[in-house]
Amino acid sequence: MISVGIIGGSGYTGKKLIQFCEKHSFVNDYKIYAQKSAGQFISDLFPDLDGQITNSKIESIDALSFEHDIYFIALPHGEALKYVPGLISSGKKVIDLGGDYRLNSSSEYEKWYGINHTSPSLLKDKIYGLADFYGTNYSSTNLIANPGCYPTAALLSLIPLLSGFNESIQSISVTAYSGTSGAGKTPKLELMMSEMDGDVSAYNVNKHRHQPEIIQMLNQFGFNSAFSFTTHLLPIAVGIYATSSIHLKENLNEDVIKNYYKNFYIDSSFVRVRETPPHLNWVVDSNFCDINVSVKDKVVIVTAAIDNLIKGASGQAIQNMNKLLGFDETLGLGIKGVKDASIY
Amino acid sequence: MISVGIIGGSGYTGKKLIQFCEKHSFVNDYKIYAQKSAGQFISDLFPDLDGQITNSKIESIDALSFEHDIYFIALPHGEALKYVPGLISSGKKVIDLGGDYRLNSSSEYEKWYGINHTSPSLLKDKIYGLADFYGTNYSSTNLIANPGCYPTAALLSLIPLLSGFNESIQSISVTAYSGTSGAGKTPKLELMMSEMDGDVSAYNVNKHRHQPEIIQMLNQFGFNSAFSFTTHLLPIAVGIYATSSIHLKENLNEDVIKNYYKNFYIDSSFVRVRETPPHLNWVVDSNFCDINVSVKDKVVIVTAAIDNLIKGASGQAIQNMNKLLGFDETLGLGIKGVKDASIY
Amino acid sequence: MISVGIIGGSGYTGKKLIQFCEKHSFVNDYKIYAQKSAGQFISDLFPDLDGQITNSKIESIDALSFEHDIYFIALPHGEALKYVPGLISSGKKVIDLGGDYRLNSSSEYEKWYGINHTSPSLLKDKIYGLADFYGTNYSSTNLIANPGCYPTAALLSLIPLLSGFNESIQSISVTAYSGTSGAGKTPKLELMMSEMDGDVSAYNVNKHRHQPEIIQMLNQFGFNSAFSFTTHLLPIAVGIYATSSIHLKENLNEDVIKNYYKNFYIDSSFVRVRETPPHLNWVVDSNFCDINVSVKDKVVIVTAAIDNLIKGASGQAIQNMNKLLGFDETLGLGIKGVKDASIY
Amino acid sequence: MISVGIIGGSGYTGKKLIQFCEKHSFVNDYKIYAQKSAGQFISDLFPDLDGQITNSKIESIDALSFEHDIYFIALPHGEALKYVPGLISSGKKVIDLGGDYRLNSSSEYEKWYGINHTSPSLLKDKIYGLADFYGTNYSSTNLIANPGCYPTAALLSLIPLLSGFNESIQSISVTAYSGTSGAGKTPKLELMMSEMDGDVSAYNVNKHRHQPEIIQMLNQFGFNSAFSFTTHLLPIAVGIYATSSIHLKENLNEDVIKNYYKNFYIDSSFVRVRETPPHLNWVVDSNFCDINVSVKDKVVIVTAAIDNLIKGASGQAIQNMNKLLGFDETLGLGIKGVKDASIY
Repeated sequence: MISVGIIGGSGYTGKKLIQFCEKHSFVNDYKIYAQKSAGQFISDLFPDLDGQITNSKIESIDALSFEHDIYFIALPHGEALKYVPGLISSGKKVIDLGGDYRLNSSSEYEKWYGINHTSPSLLKDKIYGLADFYGTNYSSTNLIANPGCYPTAALLSLIPLLSGFNESIQSISVTAYSGTSGAGKTPKLELMMSEMDGDVSAYNVNKHRHQPEIIQMLNQFGFNSAFSFTTHLLPIAVGIYATSSIHLKENLNEDVIKNYYKNFYIDSSFVRVRETPPHLNWVVDSNFCDINVSVKDKVVIVTAAIDNLIKGASGQAIQNMNKLLGFDETLGLGIKGVKDASIY
Repeated sequence: MISVGIIGGSGYTGKKLIQFCEKHSFVNDYKIYAQKSAGQFISDLFPDLDGQITNSKIESIDALSFEHDIYFIALPHGEALKYVPGLISSGKKVIDLGGDYRLNSSSEYEKWYGINHTSPSLLKDKIYGLADFYGTNYSSTNLIANPGCYPTAALLSLIPLLSGFNESIQSISVTAYSGTSGAGKTPKLELMMSEMDGDVSAYNVNKHRHQPEIIQMLNQFGFNSAFSFTTHLLPIAVGIYATSSIHLKENLNEDVIKNYYKNFYIDSSFVRVRETPPHLNWVVDSNFCDINVSVKDKVVIVTAAIDNLIKGASGQAIQNMNKLLGFDETLGLGIKGVKDASIY
Repeated sequence: MISVGIIGGSGYTGKKLIQFCEKHSFVNDYKIYAQKSAGQFISDLFPDLDGQITNSKIESIDALSFEHDIYFIALPHGEALKYVPGLISSGKKVIDLGGDYRLNSSSEYEKWYGINHTSPSLLKDKIYGLADFYGTNYSSTNLIANPGCYPTAALLSLIPLLSGFNESIQSISVTAYSGTSGAGKTPKLELMMSEMDGDVSAYNVNKHRHQPEIIQMLNQFGFNSAFSFTTHLLPIAVGIYATSSIHLKENLNEDVIKNYYKNFYIDSSFVRVRETPPHLNWVVDSNFCDINVSVKDKVVIVTAAIDNLIKGASGQAIQNMNKLLGFDETLGLGIKGVKDASIY
Repeated sequence: MISVGIIGGSGYTGKKLIQFCEKHSFVNDYKIYAQKSAGQFISDLFPDLDGQITNSKIESIDALSFEHDIYFIALPHGEALKYVPGLISSGKKVIDLGGDYRLNSSSEYEKWYGINHTSPSLLKDKIYGLADFYGTNYSSTNLIANPGCYPTAALLSLIPLLSGFNESIQSISVTAYSGTSGAGKTPKLELMMSEMDGDVSAYNVNKHRHQPEIIQMLNQFGFNSAFSFTTHLLPIAVGIYATSSIHLKENLNEDVIKNYYKNFYIDSSFVRVRETPPHLNWVVDSNFCDINVSVKDKVVIVTAAIDNLIKGASGQAIQNMNKLLGFDETLGLGIKGVKDASIY
């Protein structure tokens, strides 16, 4: 049984971490640390959780305790830099849900985030925790950089193709749409219901911070062809839908590629390769990533759907915790065969 | 461990029953019976359940087996009449989620549903399963009529007031709004996204079938004052929000009434009496009913929110099963203290 | 031809006023005055209007010019008090879309708005501009208090019944639901898409500022029976749906009441008495109020739908301007028979 | 003054045509022809139009009169083939909003639509009415094939780039999202609010009928590089958002391309080239197409937003009528400078 610290638990991903920790069989206790909401009860922040969780007071982040075995960090970028080095040097395990440790290069970090990286050596030591990617070995590290929501959808869509057919690829264009919860809880006019009802818009075109994170991983598979990545806001709260349009140098057989994808994820509990393009509603409130691949006339279209707060953040973080601690990776994530056992 | 039969499992409530049975610690196995979708796999109907359930073929309702201990019936009204008498006479336990056994009087049934009731004696034998209502004793029956979605919200809002202050009530007006899933899965123009996006409308004004069901229960508390009930469709899929406006003959003290409500539900696992009007999002995807009461100048406003498919249908049905079988009523319904234990 | 000043034109109602003034045949020119957005172009605030309006700079409210014939004021409550007396004493015509001049009593104003009223004599001189109410004579005043959005829907629903059958009424309960645009443009967490997607909640229960405005008008018809008014937020941007549940002392004939409503509004261009409960989508983007009345067993249910920004604010304000200046009341409001004539 | 026949006026595009014809200064009268709804009044089908239109009975399509000067056809594909040849041979002008005359080749039509084309010579005589495309001369024809909704957004996004920089283009990927009204009014489970609330999905991947229509036009500009086109459904009723990701063979200067787009559309009343990615809400309920172009590192991203029922169907059809009849193209489409003049 383990003890968990959640640093920055007042946002949308923090709430999901609370819910997962509450249910997780091997989590003995968890504590929330936050800035503004310190002193409030969890159920003051999240009234729907009343009666479903062990209600406790939120601690001040300034009084961060080293009593826990593992720490989740759900803070705005730049903030994790303040806590991670100390936790790691104290032998703690850390899963950072923000962007501070995802890139391997501190200069890339400074270029995209505009912040000087104060613990660059940890960039090398961390594992980029794309949890469903086959073969990741977590034994070498105490620091997991949990992937961004868009990169999770994009990379799970593209890695099989790169893994098997990289040399046939001419260009990749990823077009992704996200619900508004990905933009956080800070009130902004452009995120209000009155503005967003019925609305769609692209944003951060040609300059989204998740782009270098995607490219860094694609490069590991030898990819250095043309790439683009465009993000949009949907008029809903939750979910990401990513469509990858790949132009090939030569035609490839659809069945070959489909089977390659199926085999690639054959042991994955959370990636479902589908016969039709997935629906966002198939994955919302779950840790699944649903993927479909279609090939015709030197064009590959890969569509993928995830819950941005679960598979794109807190669910994947729990999955990473399971892997880091040697548990079954599905533990606490609500999968088949798991009975909602009571005290009986 | 029990075996469960779900008759009519292809609709929205059927799906929830499948999900709850899958997780329930004491459900050993369950089988789905349906008409049109017989022969398909559960995951063909509900692709999101793929990998989360024991996927099996849907059986034909014509080949209904008596092998199960308890049966849930989720059929259009009139249809349950065909199956319930046989199941009951075979000693099976039955929870009917439809309207066929909710009213006590066969003539009232025929008036509101336009169908001749073929097993009127069972109307007397059944229990109207308003599961959170204090004091219900289930040992006397094998047949539970699961309340309608609107009546669940309305009755949980009103019963405490009637129980303590009936003689002070001059009139009650219930105004309720529901998501579209309450209208079922049959495709209709007026229920399409293209028509309903941004839309609201009242329907079945002064003639909704849930009205006699509410009044029948209110009468048990001696209520025979003025009553009205008006239903509306919301431009969302899930949830009911019910606002009860009660005019009093004399003023009552707000604190007295608030405390009465709190005490009334003090032992209820699923009714949360709130200090502010509830938000629908607090209860969606849960078996909770959240209630707030406000009193001023001889006016009582009770607001209540439920998930129409869970507390208003399948969640309450599971709760009723738990009570009928002598289990803890929260079993399988995802409440505090319940760890999502795996095979470890 | 007239010149129009719009004071506080940067909000949702201000935008609608701009659009109506642009199209109005008798509006020669209009100018926007605002605080924070002064110096910006109209199309900076409202990019969709680009190419559809005579784009001009927004003036500072501090440099308010007296060059205009008529002024619309769309400011938060308390703010209109600063401008109205000066404009009126200069002989200008004023239509205030806020709440500062709606109540007749300064003590009621201070009770509900928490502000000392600095021009109480104008409360007597103003006309409460419920534009579709039969018989209003505007010649006696230069100041119109434009009704609130909820009161517009509630009063158009109730006045016919009070006018003809007041002595039969035992109690009235109005339950109204509004889109979020009624809550203004100031960013708030609870109004964000991430919070409101799929959500519904009651608010200001037993204490909404529109209640005294409704009651003041009902009293004019001799009504002094039991009354309640409860407001809710819908997960959409635009529209109000109001359901009035009236309990009668004696039964009334449905046809009699329906015909009474039809005759009451027979000359109204903007009130449509419907055979079925209206849909919100029937009235959104229009100045219509659609009403249905149903009577059964001493219960009258009146349902009404309006666009809160048009009929509930700026459309009614233009209609009031038309009446105040002796124009046809439909002018500029997009009604049958009006050709979208060009310069040809 | 002209007389207009609208064949197939009971759908979403038919309704918009009615509204535009009602307001158009040069339309003297219009008649609706339909199959199932023949005999009903227009306001029976569209209750919101009550009081805003000259309400008349819908005629049977079997009694199609040749009394009109111009005909709009808003029928499912295959149906227009029955009416267009007769109308054209009678000297009538025809604007077909469906797909039957958009492609130039009857074999392509048969391949994509699965129907034998019975009037192939008209495929050559028609003009593909992309109304905002510079230089189109309408004097040579009586038949306009009104472009599909997706092609309108895609072509207005791409034609400037092809026109000026075709030789630099390596590949184009168009990813487009549409509201559900594009899928028509036939009730289908997958289009219901209960299914679509919060949902997103790709559909017709690598096989959408609008693809050959886009490619046919791109080819006219010498384009024969890699192309893909993927369509998705949004959980809203109205609007199309199209994102075109273009990979270049060599880098191009962003300012050069932005200015090229601005100049390309400098005389267009309905294409607004924007400094930021457009919002769908900027164009809904209008005939505008808003476009933004961003260039970086050999990647061009063009984002475009239209109202699928107006610019993507009926608004463009009215614009085409204006051009075909020699009127100002903005007539009846609600543009700046147009006063909503009454009979005064």
